[in-house]
Amino acid sequence: MDLIKNGWFSEVHDLWPGQCFSLKVKEVLYKDKSEYQDILIFESTNNGRALILDGIVQCTQKDEFSYQEMITFIPLCAHPNPERVLIVGGGDGGVAREVQKHPSVKEIVQVEIDEKVVKASQKYLPFMAKGFDSPKLTLKICDGFEYMKNHNNEFDVIITDSSDPIGPAVNLFTESYYKLLKTALKPNGIISCQAGTVWTDLEHVKQTMGHCRKHFGNVKYAYSSVPSYPDGQIGYLIASLDDTNDLRQPKFTFTERQLDELNVKFYNDEIHGAAFVLPNFVRRELYK
Amino acid sequence: MDLIKNGWFSEVHDLWPGQCFSLKVKEVLYKDKSEYQDILIFESTNNGRALILDGIVQCTQKDEFSYQEMITFIPLCAHPNPERVLIVGGGDGGVAREVQKHPSVKEIVQVEIDEKVVKASQKYLPFMAKGFDSPKLTLKICDGFEYMKNHNNEFDVIITDSSDPIGPAVNLFTESYYKLLKTALKPNGIISCQAGTVWTDLEHVKQTMGHCRKHFGNVKYAYSSVPSYPDGQIGYLIASLDDTNDLRQPKFTFTERQLDELNVKFYNDEIHGAAFVLPNFVRRELYK
Repeated sequence: MDLIKNGWFSEVHDLWPGQCFSLKVKEVLYKDKSEYQDILIFESTNNGRALILDGIVQCTQKDEFSYQEMITFIPLCAHPNPERVLIVGGGDGGVAREVQKHPSVKEIVQVEIDEKVVKASQKYLPFMAKGFDSPKLTLKICDGFEYMKNHNNEFDVIITDSSDPIGPAVNLFTESYYKLLKTALKPNGIISCQAGTVWTDLEHVKQTMGHCRKHFGNVKYAYSSVPSYPDGQIGYLIASLDDTNDLRQPKFTFTERQLDELNVKFYNDEIHGAAFVLPNFVRRELYK
Repeated sequence: MDLIKNGWFSEVHDLWPGQCFSLKVKEVLYKDKSEYQDILIFESTNNGRALILDGIVQCTQKDEFSYQEMITFIPLCAHPNPERVLIVGGGDGGVAREVQKHPSVKEIVQVEIDEKVVKASQKYLPFMAKGFDSPKLTLKICDGFEYMKNHNNEFDVIITDSSDPIGPAVNLFTESYYKLLKTALKPNGIISCQAGTVWTDLEHVKQTMGHCRKHFGNVKYAYSSVPSYPDGQIGYLIASLDDTNDLRQPKFTFTERQLDELNVKFYNDEIHGAAFVLPNFVRRELYK
């Protein structure tokens, strides 16, 4: 399918039937097919550079920081001392860029299945791929699912920065994935996973939380505004092995000066808590 | 311009260049041109009925409750005793539907300039237009700007449910409009106005708040998720003549039972406060 028509990229997809977000394209920078997916990177007219996988917007330069910061700092700041962090996916480097900003973090392991996404991001999306330059980071090109089978009790926080539950990411929304996450975590570890949107698919969010609840006692849903994603927002499943940890409450707070110096544009301690506050129609379904 | 092509309505507009939201159309129900604007109502395939004015989505059945409830209950619940309420605009009836749910409200006056929007909504959008049936409501077809010139010191809360700052609503974003709002309010009165989105036009939000601050000492910006609007969210300018009123703190809280019985699907006392919590890049610009 030709994704770009008359100068516009349109995200028509069965995951969000009857609605579509479009971006005006200035210049296509990269187009390739990897072993796992179609990769497209273009410069848009007004939203900066955009990364598209299998026809779905992964990020635009205009608003990617909301997603990267929130999926990262909610679990890191909810943990009392996050020293070792695993990133599953995140091939654009944006989550790695954020993780290394947290002062407690000593070591980051990242497992990404698709090396072509990493290489293309390093060439065309340096504002995110600079995350790979962190001396704390070890990048492994392999299947996150397989990696975790051999790594037990190792991580304080695991962030799953996946694409949507089709294609290469489909395993990352199953019950067995949450079981693996649990064994890979240290005691009192915390996970954070991309968890879709409640407006278009509340049932899927419920189902994913149900899978997670089979292995974690303390499971919450948070969200933030990301205009380039369907429904203009994205959700995060946040879960802890410590049932007494109030995940809405940050244990570490960046000062205003740190937020400025570290170029943290979205996350702050107030928005950490606010991200967990849900509309009635969502609250009733997810916590009844 | 033909807004519907190949079965899709697309919201291409200079107010949000380079990005576009589209809805798949099942059936066009109404199309007319009033003295003020082009009016289009269609049944979409997945988002229910949609009202379009001058090519811009005003509401869809799927998510209109987020906007209607938040622009209404934030000011009403921030006020200690909101008895008399003025609605400026709101021709679809959705805000009137919400205002009459608040137990303190005794009288509602609504001034809408375009009778054709009211009539079309009554026929094709009854889920919103039922707000006009409230025995507390008096509907006047006239210019809100002109109406307020002759009504001083009358209202506890004034809600401006306007379209965007072009066409018939352009006056509702000027400094002189905020001056009128101030004189129409009783002491300690509160206003709530549709105030655009910070992602696409932070400068315009700043400018509008600047106009308001010339007449009100206590001015805040809140927002909520509305997938059908540009950037998937909409902002609300909330201001009080009482500088000591912490607008983030509700003075009236609906019980869970009331929320159910009144069919309040989005607003609750927690989301009231959370709506005021802003990302760093917004906070720095609006409150520096």
